Amino acid sequence: MTDSLNTAPIQAWKNCRLLTGVAGQGVIADGMILAQNGRITYAGPATDAPALDGAVEITDLGGRLVTPGLIDCHTHIVHGGNRAREFEMRLDGASYVEIAQAGGGIMSTVRATRELGVEELIAQALPRLDALLAEGITTIEIKSGYGLTIEAELNMLRAARRLAEHRDVRIVTSYLGAHAVPEEYRGRKQDYLADVLLPALDKAHAEGLVDAVDGFCEGIAFTTDEMAQVFDRAAVLGLPIKLHAEQLTQSGGTKLAASRGALSADHLEYIDDADAAALAASGTVAVLLPGAFYAIRETQKPDIATLRRHGVAMAVATDCNPGTSPLTSLLLGMNMAATLFGLTVNECLAGVTINAAKALGLEAETGTIEAGKSADLAVWNCEAPAELVYRMGFNPLERRIFKGKTL
Amino acid sequence: MTDSLNTAPIQAWKNCRLLTGVAGQGVIADGMILAQNGRITYAGPATDAPALDGAVEITDLGGRLVTPGLIDCHTHIVHGGNRAREFEMRLDGASYVEIAQAGGGIMSTVRATRELGVEELIAQALPRLDALLAEGITTIEIKSGYGLTIEAELNMLRAARRLAEHRDVRIVTSYLGAHAVPEEYRGRKQDYLADVLLPALDKAHAEGLVDAVDGFCEGIAFTTDEMAQVFDRAAVLGLPIKLHAEQLTQSGGTKLAASRGALSADHLEYIDDADAAALAASGTVAVLLPGAFYAIRETQKPDIATLRRHGVAMAVATDCNPGTSPLTSLLLGMNMAATLFGLTVNECLAGVTINAAKALGLEAETGTIEAGKSADLAVWNCEAPAELVYRMGFNPLERRIFKGKTL
Repeated sequence: MTDSLNTAPIQAWKNCRLLTGVAGQGVIADGMILAQNGRITYAGPATDAPALDGAVEITDLGGRLVTPGLIDCHTHIVHGGNRAREFEMRLDGASYVEIAQAGGGIMSTVRATRELGVEELIAQALPRLDALLAEGITTIEIKSGYGLTIEAELNMLRAARRLAEHRDVRIVTSYLGAHAVPEEYRGRKQDYLADVLLPALDKAHAEGLVDAVDGFCEGIAFTTDEMAQVFDRAAVLGLPIKLHAEQLTQSGGTKLAASRGALSADHLEYIDDADAAALAASGTVAVLLPGAFYAIRETQKPDIATLRRHGVAMAVATDCNPGTSPLTSLLLGMNMAATLFGLTVNECLAGVTINAAKALGLEAETGTIEAGKSADLAVWNCEAPAELVYRMGFNPLERRIFKGKTL
Repeated sequence: MTDSLNTAPIQAWKNCRLLTGVAGQGVIADGMILAQNGRITYAGPATDAPALDGAVEITDLGGRLVTPGLIDCHTHIVHGGNRAREFEMRLDGASYVEIAQAGGGIMSTVRATRELGVEELIAQALPRLDALLAEGITTIEIKSGYGLTIEAELNMLRAARRLAEHRDVRIVTSYLGAHAVPEEYRGRKQDYLADVLLPALDKAHAEGLVDAVDGFCEGIAFTTDEMAQVFDRAAVLGLPIKLHAEQLTQSGGTKLAASRGALSADHLEYIDDADAAALAASGTVAVLLPGAFYAIRETQKPDIATLRRHGVAMAVATDCNPGTSPLTSLLLGMNMAATLFGLTVNECLAGVTINAAKALGLEAETGTIEAGKSADLAVWNCEAPAELVYRMGFNPLERRIFKGKTL
């Protein structure tokens, strides 16, 4: 550490109800947080805090609740257009075929995304990002997967990276070339892998655009054998992996993800006991996406009791995407996880903080309020953490703090 | 009309996509709205607008979508405390008895409400009201029913009325002394009616606090015979009525409400064909409350097909209340009505505008954008009305206009 770092002012946030998120700590009634250079140096009871000397910037939080900054660990916020017309047609009774004939479905988002350059992708993503940041999010994962050409996939990832130049937030990218087979490769999936999916991954990685490699493992998308090819390339490049698995059917994706040591397996409506055991053995986080479950009127719920019994870490995310989860509220995501899946309040809160950090490989950097981690905080106009889960469509955020900076 | 009124400046909003809400008009691509003294004088295509002379304040809406100001026609936003602890206990597996023993349930809200004076009730309601206004609401109904003493019921209604002094919004009150039987009258329901419920109604009416009389008709609350006594008094006082009916069981409330010409019957999960026919015959609006359906994990859905077949007007509201619907987003209410109940986009939009106005007896004053009505408008950063229903947890409001005043 240099002298200039040592003499940087100390930031102190005092007079708060402090939910550090560290196991067993609960809510500390009179909490204090200290940080220097955006990194926490102390978090705990004010009475136990070290004596302060030198320059100190003290902020009185007026007894408010403080939690770790929230983490949305599964989103598709970078994309073109929206699917409101398709949503309306379905309610009017249109069939899948009629919607497809009207240009709906995932390919409509692919077409809309391909039409946009990086700046336009950023402009369309910003309102969605802002809605999430307004709820105290300090870290967000963003996937590609609506480009499905080399250039369009790169543009999505470039836009995702560059959102961090527009807003104070930590962005984590996932390459999702294995999201769908584009129309021009219909019936030629291996050609798509060879021509586009794998070369785009190489190029995106070379450009520093990829933090993890993701895929959609499902009958309508990619098989476990095809995903294994993608994960082989990720391993060569030294990139961590994650997977959309067991969302619509039992397809083997969860076991594949676990066998490869994936950071997370996401959705999981159709997992069984063996899947949960595999996730537990590999330390893979189960990312639950109740917004998609709700929006597609799914009735098969992920087996929470089995995940609990095996001790699988559970995260909760918005899955914000234009087709199956146009959700830009992680608070509502928590409420849905509780109401629809039966997660407890503590499971919901861990699901958008420490377990979401684990799902991104960032548990040493963020996700709890403890010494050594980034000073990523959310300050709330409420008393009890349960209020963050209980309300529907209400945002009690008072301020958001990212790397020690109040926003 | 006086000279001063005639010479008041004309307001003109131009360059908008205009959803007047008038049947058959759809979205007018290049719309214009004119108003004077807060009242609409023209709404339609810009090309058909009358020539403007005299003082005109022109506002260019930049091509944005304009809809009628939204109307939340069923809320309980005035109350004390919250029920987050009870929500948490239930997720942790606590039984109904354990929650009651811990002081939970509706009586906990009654106790918390009774502790507050009018100013405190206002202070606690304002964040909820602000959340709703931020979504373009210009009219809101607010019920009493957590006081259950004469004074506490009056205080709730006074607080509801006085919210209009704090915010630019039209407030409509409903007296809901027939919400629950308070603990001190357990087993003595007729005494509660004689001692509290009816005298409080008389006093509240004398004080000008009551726009309609409401009740909760259900085995756990009030029977049709008891509600008939309350409605008899409402008739004597010349007050319109409405009713929470068929939410949890088939209790006969819908038929009672219809037979008395109620403005609305609300919830309606357990209605049958005869109920729907009765509502149609009496012109009573069916107010759907999907937030409560969702929050209490109800599985019986109101029979929308039957309501449609009989031509019953359907409204959608938040039911914002601390126990069974802590929902402060009418946009989310629309999404839930579509996703959970299968309402079409047009039905959702009518449900929070013209049909909500009918449920409050205000269809001559607000609920559509047409000459003679109040200039209550919502301006949105989106293109198609369907976007207001399709998204979850996203608020595209650009501005709210109430009686011609931009807010």
